[in-house]
Amino acid sequence: MSDLELNLKNAQKEVDKTIKSLLPSGKGLEKKLFEAINYSILSSGKRIRPYLVIQSSKLFDVDQKNALRVASSIEMIHAYSLIHDDLPSMDNDFLRRGLPTTHRKYNEATAILAGDSLLTLSFEILSDNLTHNDSKIRCELIYELARAAGANGMVAGQMMDLEAENKKLSIGVITRIQRLKTGALIAFSCNAGAILGRAEKKYKFALQGYAHDIGLAYQIRDDLLDVTSTTKKLGKKVNKDKKIGKKNFVSILGKERAKKQLEILGNQAIEHLEVFDSRADMLREIARFIVERNK
Amino acid sequence: MSDLELNLKNAQKEVDKTIKSLLPSGKGLEKKLFEAINYSILSSGKRIRPYLVIQSSKLFDVDQKNALRVASSIEMIHAYSLIHDDLPSMDNDFLRRGLPTTHRKYNEATAILAGDSLLTLSFEILSDNLTHNDSKIRCELIYELARAAGANGMVAGQMMDLEAENKKLSIGVITRIQRLKTGALIAFSCNAGAILGRAEKKYKFALQGYAHDIGLAYQIRDDLLDVTSTTKKLGKKVNKDKKIGKKNFVSILGKERAKKQLEILGNQAIEHLEVFDSRADMLREIARFIVERNK
Repeated sequence: MSDLELNLKNAQKEVDKTIKSLLPSGKGLEKKLFEAINYSILSSGKRIRPYLVIQSSKLFDVDQKNALRVASSIEMIHAYSLIHDDLPSMDNDFLRRGLPTTHRKYNEATAILAGDSLLTLSFEILSDNLTHNDSKIRCELIYELARAAGANGMVAGQMMDLEAENKKLSIGVITRIQRLKTGALIAFSCNAGAILGRAEKKYKFALQGYAHDIGLAYQIRDDLLDVTSTTKKLGKKVNKDKKIGKKNFVSILGKERAKKQLEILGNQAIEHLEVFDSRADMLREIARFIVERNK
Repeated sequence: MSDLELNLKNAQKEVDKTIKSLLPSGKGLEKKLFEAINYSILSSGKRIRPYLVIQSSKLFDVDQKNALRVASSIEMIHAYSLIHDDLPSMDNDFLRRGLPTTHRKYNEATAILAGDSLLTLSFEILSDNLTHNDSKIRCELIYELARAAGANGMVAGQMMDLEAENKKLSIGVITRIQRLKTGALIAFSCNAGAILGRAEKKYKFALQGYAHDIGLAYQIRDDLLDVTSTTKKLGKKVNKDKKIGKKNFVSILGKERAKKQLEILGNQAIEHLEVFDSRADMLREIARFIVERNK
């Protein structure tokens, strides 16, 4: 196991412990809701976004208890977005991380409400003074997360993605969709470390550039895996975009040019980290991992 | 037109103006999302919750610009909850405020995303320093709203409500469902004014008692209208609970006892306001309005 894999595994454990401690529980008529929330967020996942919060916050000597709470809240937003995206009226996916999607395991209503709960819980956690004793920092985290996740960010990206089916799209439009749909939350994950650490502007800019490049790289790798991997390996349906007539980086650029682009983005991301010393090595590793990952 | 009706109308205009200024807009592929958001929140509605924020904040001389932003954010939460509750997998309603529900006007995916957007936007607004220059107050608003709206509040209530179909329920369980499903957000609306005004505890408690009683009264009145009014008058389906075998206050208590209970709650609500002078008169009027309203 590489350093990164080991590090990721350890972080995953810490994050999962924090998430578990933050989830609602109870025995009333609403019990199924709590079960669905647990099911959807604790069924593994790579925890890339939480790891980005942890690593970016380490650059600025942030208390890791604070970073873990922010990391957990971002993972909750990510989990909510997956639950809602998987719904029959959206991407209609049956499989996620090798398991039935939340609406298949429970039912549609419960899945929608589990998503709503996680979205709301995320803001509850960030507003709590256990996350940071400076309320200005808490508000900045909430504001930036809401901007990244809402109708000018991730949700807009999902809407565009749905509207994109069977349309001829330019590479510019596809880039915008992905920047919003997956890029915005990845960018916030890096930004969160900088906010927690009251980082200088030049460091924020560097992380922003880095996040932008790995966000796009992540999506291109996803599109490549969609045509080269198998459902068994990925734990989710493959060849999806082609089946529903959706253009993506690979269908427009072709496999070879997409691979080339992916490499360029990976290197560019690492270059952005030049302002940081060896403490950014794990962020460098993540960039490489994103370019090379097989699932 | 009574004083209250005039006052409500004026507040409604102010709130709608504020909401309009806060909604996202744009022309890209995501345009339909913005249209659906606009449609769902600006198609009238009584604006009771915003009015409670405005009136409770007036007790403590709160800047009304601040109150209007908080009022708008609560109305966004309310609108999101209606959009999601109306979905086919939930209450499957076609009509809301005399118009097609959001998923009927657009489609399910767009409705889900419009709800997600409004929920997220609500927290964005509250975290913005335009809402209050004290970040501690902003965080308190966010925390309390998230508690009221999330998996231990409104969403739990909706889950319980769905699970309640065709079950024998005690009046205690029904009260708990309603306290969570509609009461929590009504209570937060009153609490928001107190938070904005840094109110003393005794005033917070008084408002809490008041909010609790009008919240329950509101629901009992709803259940009464469900059996005594018409779809045309209410702008939404009637006789709903009976059709799906759901118990409510009227089906358990009977019409007469429910009416009696409603009156008791209205009077009790007004008694809680004794600690306030005539500035609480409009809150007293709302209590009466809730008991007597015909739609």
